[in-house]
Amino acid sequence: MKEKIVVIGAVAAGPRAACRVKRLNPEAEVIMIDKDDLISYGGCGIPYYVSGDIPDEKELRLTAFKMLRDEKFFENAKGVHTLTKTLATKIDRDKKLVHVKYLDTGKEETLPYDKLVLATGASPFLLPLPGKDLDGVFAVSNLHSAIEIKNRLSRGEVGKVVIIGAGAIGLEMAEAFRDLWGVEVTVLEYFSQPLPRLLDPPMARIVAQHLKEKGVKLVVNARTKEIEGKDGKVVAVITEDGRYECDLVIMATGVRPNSQLARDAGLAVSPLTGGIIVNERLQTSDPDIYAGGDCVEITHLISGKKMVLPSGALANRHGRIIGTNLAGGTETFRGAVGAFVMKCFDLAIASCGLSYEVAKWENFKAFYALHNQTERAHYYPGAGLIFVEIVADERDRRVLGFQAVGPMTDGAMARINAIAKLLEFKPRLEDTAYMELAYAPPFNSALDPINVVSMVANNMADGLFKPIELDEIFKRLKENYPNTVFVDVRSEREAAPFIEKYPGRWICIPYNQVRHNVDKIPKDKEVILICNSSMRAYEAARVLYAAGYEKVYVPLGGMNFARRWGWIT
Amino acid sequence: MKEKIVVIGAVAAGPRAACRVKRLNPEAEVIMIDKDDLISYGGCGIPYYVSGDIPDEKELRLTAFKMLRDEKFFENAKGVHTLTKTLATKIDRDKKLVHVKYLDTGKEETLPYDKLVLATGASPFLLPLPGKDLDGVFAVSNLHSAIEIKNRLSRGEVGKVVIIGAGAIGLEMAEAFRDLWGVEVTVLEYFSQPLPRLLDPPMARIVAQHLKEKGVKLVVNARTKEIEGKDGKVVAVITEDGRYECDLVIMATGVRPNSQLARDAGLAVSPLTGGIIVNERLQTSDPDIYAGGDCVEITHLISGKKMVLPSGALANRHGRIIGTNLAGGTETFRGAVGAFVMKCFDLAIASCGLSYEVAKWENFKAFYALHNQTERAHYYPGAGLIFVEIVADERDRRVLGFQAVGPMTDGAMARINAIAKLLEFKPRLEDTAYMELAYAPPFNSALDPINVVSMVANNMADGLFKPIELDEIFKRLKENYPNTVFVDVRSEREAAPFIEKYPGRWICIPYNQVRHNVDKIPKDKEVILICNSSMRAYEAARVLYAAGYEKVYVPLGGMNFARRWGWIT
Repeated sequence: MKEKIVVIGAVAAGPRAACRVKRLNPEAEVIMIDKDDLISYGGCGIPYYVSGDIPDEKELRLTAFKMLRDEKFFENAKGVHTLTKTLATKIDRDKKLVHVKYLDTGKEETLPYDKLVLATGASPFLLPLPGKDLDGVFAVSNLHSAIEIKNRLSRGEVGKVVIIGAGAIGLEMAEAFRDLWGVEVTVLEYFSQPLPRLLDPPMARIVAQHLKEKGVKLVVNARTKEIEGKDGKVVAVITEDGRYECDLVIMATGVRPNSQLARDAGLAVSPLTGGIIVNERLQTSDPDIYAGGDCVEITHLISGKKMVLPSGALANRHGRIIGTNLAGGTETFRGAVGAFVMKCFDLAIASCGLSYEVAKWENFKAFYALHNQTERAHYYPGAGLIFVEIVADERDRRVLGFQAVGPMTDGAMARINAIAKLLEFKPRLEDTAYMELAYAPPFNSALDPINVVSMVANNMADGLFKPIELDEIFKRLKENYPNTVFVDVRSEREAAPFIEKYPGRWICIPYNQVRHNVDKIPKDKEVILICNSSMRAYEAARVLYAAGYEKVYVPLGGMNFARRWGWIT
Repeated sequence: MKEKIVVIGAVAAGPRAACRVKRLNPEAEVIMIDKDDLISYGGCGIPYYVSGDIPDEKELRLTAFKMLRDEKFFENAKGVHTLTKTLATKIDRDKKLVHVKYLDTGKEETLPYDKLVLATGASPFLLPLPGKDLDGVFAVSNLHSAIEIKNRLSRGEVGKVVIIGAGAIGLEMAEAFRDLWGVEVTVLEYFSQPLPRLLDPPMARIVAQHLKEKGVKLVVNARTKEIEGKDGKVVAVITEDGRYECDLVIMATGVRPNSQLARDAGLAVSPLTGGIIVNERLQTSDPDIYAGGDCVEITHLISGKKMVLPSGALANRHGRIIGTNLAGGTETFRGAVGAFVMKCFDLAIASCGLSYEVAKWENFKAFYALHNQTERAHYYPGAGLIFVEIVADERDRRVLGFQAVGPMTDGAMARINAIAKLLEFKPRLEDTAYMELAYAPPFNSALDPINVVSMVANNMADGLFKPIELDEIFKRLKENYPNTVFVDVRSEREAAPFIEKYPGRWICIPYNQVRHNVDKIPKDKEVILICNSSMRAYEAARVLYAAGYEKVYVPLGGMNFARRWGWIT
């Protein structure tokens, strides 16, 4: 089929679609255009380029076999005619023409198409703050700004940075500035925690504390008012509560789909998400026009709601599906659960599905369980702790989401990837509790954290223990809450500092002595059992319930969480 | 319910069942017996204890919170009455009595039960060789032999070891002897590769070459005839082809379920696998007797066949299900797909489901695809290569199995765990090709190896390229096969040594020049396209097919496989 195919956008979905259709249908005439001159680069690698881990920006533009992905590459290697600095100004659907403007010459032209692909991506959403156009205010949206930021770093012009937004990109940039360059970094976050929506508070607090330990100043609940400048250059960011001096500002406040071209062409665009509306074959409301990547709206497979999900991985999948379908295939894309992973200094952070907070908001009868254990067999040398959370619906025990924060290994990703695709099949806690996972001591424990946290959640749902949040525990400790006794079932050594700090209220009965010392625990008080992962606490609770105690509580997660939040040492 | 529950076996499934039922039903009277004095230890950790990574064998017997799991521990912490050195000699099902013999005193007794649990585990299968009872011949079956082996190592009595069997335990022990102790290690394997059934030859060869590089002598197709002794001590192992001197022999030739007690009691035991037959609730043919762990037969969820699968992880899951059901629950175990991971020196090796060879043997119309790529984004510093294989059925493209060999990170496990549970839902290649996986450059590429190898397999099934095995390529090269031309689409630098070695037969047309140099490729010959991962070769093949070439072949896996097999440098 000698079809004319025009692809608008040459970063991820676009090239993937263009090259795939060209391979399947070599006779197709494929033209790919992009308004930029830098195309097909690994945008997700920008923080590692800024940090210096990746010395040259060209690395982000090379193939794995070290060929530069420029216009000539697509022309020669892929047979895709590629025009850069070429802006698509209008789509004439009746005549099937794309109007383009060559940005270098200003010349305008029309490109005829049989099939059209919109891979226009997303643009950073810039807060409409006074001062947002000052010199030194950047979004990490493309390689040009990354190069400029790194040039300024190299020239020693950056001593203090304010990053607005503690999402993934904000935190990756915080590390980039801090780790190698030693820049003073302040991150301002509108919500009360880093990585809102991705992590629930118990997990996010671990990240917040880690940032603190790494010398990043995180300010939550920050209401940014203004960017202050002097002589046209940024000098500070002003919030309702403070003023943060800086010589560089990064706006990492999310992105918006580039859907104006589609909207102008009369294609259906979602008023809610701003994304181009596509069917499962990734066709827009005009069946000859496909769209994919950051510019389209997709379905969240758990909530059933529509969303936009900017992601290089998703864009690549979309691109290939579009390429297949352009060549007469029938591949479909149903949606996503938001599988997420990131590096944050020495932490690996990952999540998928719905967080507890989002799940409640989406009207699920959500509850959550926490757990921590060593990432490898506990006797295997050098095993760090991995912290996990599972979110489920109390009505049918369907698993809704999963979160993991652990050492900077592939362990957190391993857990998320084991769950993400599975979520589409509506697993219940019993499925994940007994889920088959590969086991050897250098990699995990006989019962993986996925198994254990699911068992904990199931035990909760079965009413086998009464959970209590650590927040409530520390509130009671602080307020000298009268009617509560804290029974530490760890070793006497571990309990000692607490007994000293909370005399009369904190007692120690080591785990293996509880059964024979029940009478030491007052029956007229609320009993909160304490250990590091709440495994021993749970077992002790079962003993106490059997002995007729009722108001016995097991902390969600255990003291290791409080330790990693910086609440105790 | 004040039920009497007796549990036979106190290593993994047994304690897990005993403690779970005691938590759910604190009134139950639970007695756990074991013929050994060392119980509830991390048996999978033995190689790391022998290697010295774990200094003291006690570490394997401690809980995560450093409490020794001995009789007292189970008594006090768990409320489980525990008798060690207590052999179950007979089950009287009519009277519901277990006959036991106390091995220290020789005294015999009967223990009444309402419900009985068989967690008798498995015993090493010792080849019936002459000399198998010589001093110095060990199986890695329990902590006692591990302690004795390590004592001999510490005393400098072990200079040369022969390990019979290149399965997981054999290879873990090879590393244990070799890595720290510097012992000369020979591994004798009956089959033609290490890790038979777990890995197919293309993956196993990477392991074989790695062992070689680490100084382990692997002898495949080894027919062991005799163990030679002198003064009652082992001095060599004799095969049909050779004699291997040694002062220690490890028999790592698999295990057999301990089902004799069950068989004697008239319970159904599989004549095929030797495992105790259980239903999905893990009840034996006597509904008051449960069994789980290494002693039972389970269902392979892909092949539908029965098997025994010795695994600490499985035993723990079984134990908990039994514990739940003993307390009146209804949990079920459907089977397993054999999720597997191991460390082998600097490699992480993982697999699940059926290998290509097993799948064919099980009458699937199996085919396989190979792929390799950097484990992290290719531009991310220090990314090693991960090698993967996917096995599918050509009739419905159902995914049957997955294998991964990569650097010693959690990356291989991450891929296996993403696939293993999913296999139960009968995914097709399209599902894994577009499978949602978390992505960030420090962890993987936008398209994960799982995605890419599935796409390769789908392309194969779609007839988009003609595959050829590397074996056939090297055969043709060696035999000076007349009618074949090798077109290297890598750089001229990479192609140069091959052009020199195979003049006239090996030519170089770099990937991005193929499209314009098709005429340089002879049309009357079979064309084999060469690159490192067969990605470029595939694209070049599409160009040639479009130009009317038919006999154009793309190697399965690419030259990186041959390099890691030690076939090229």
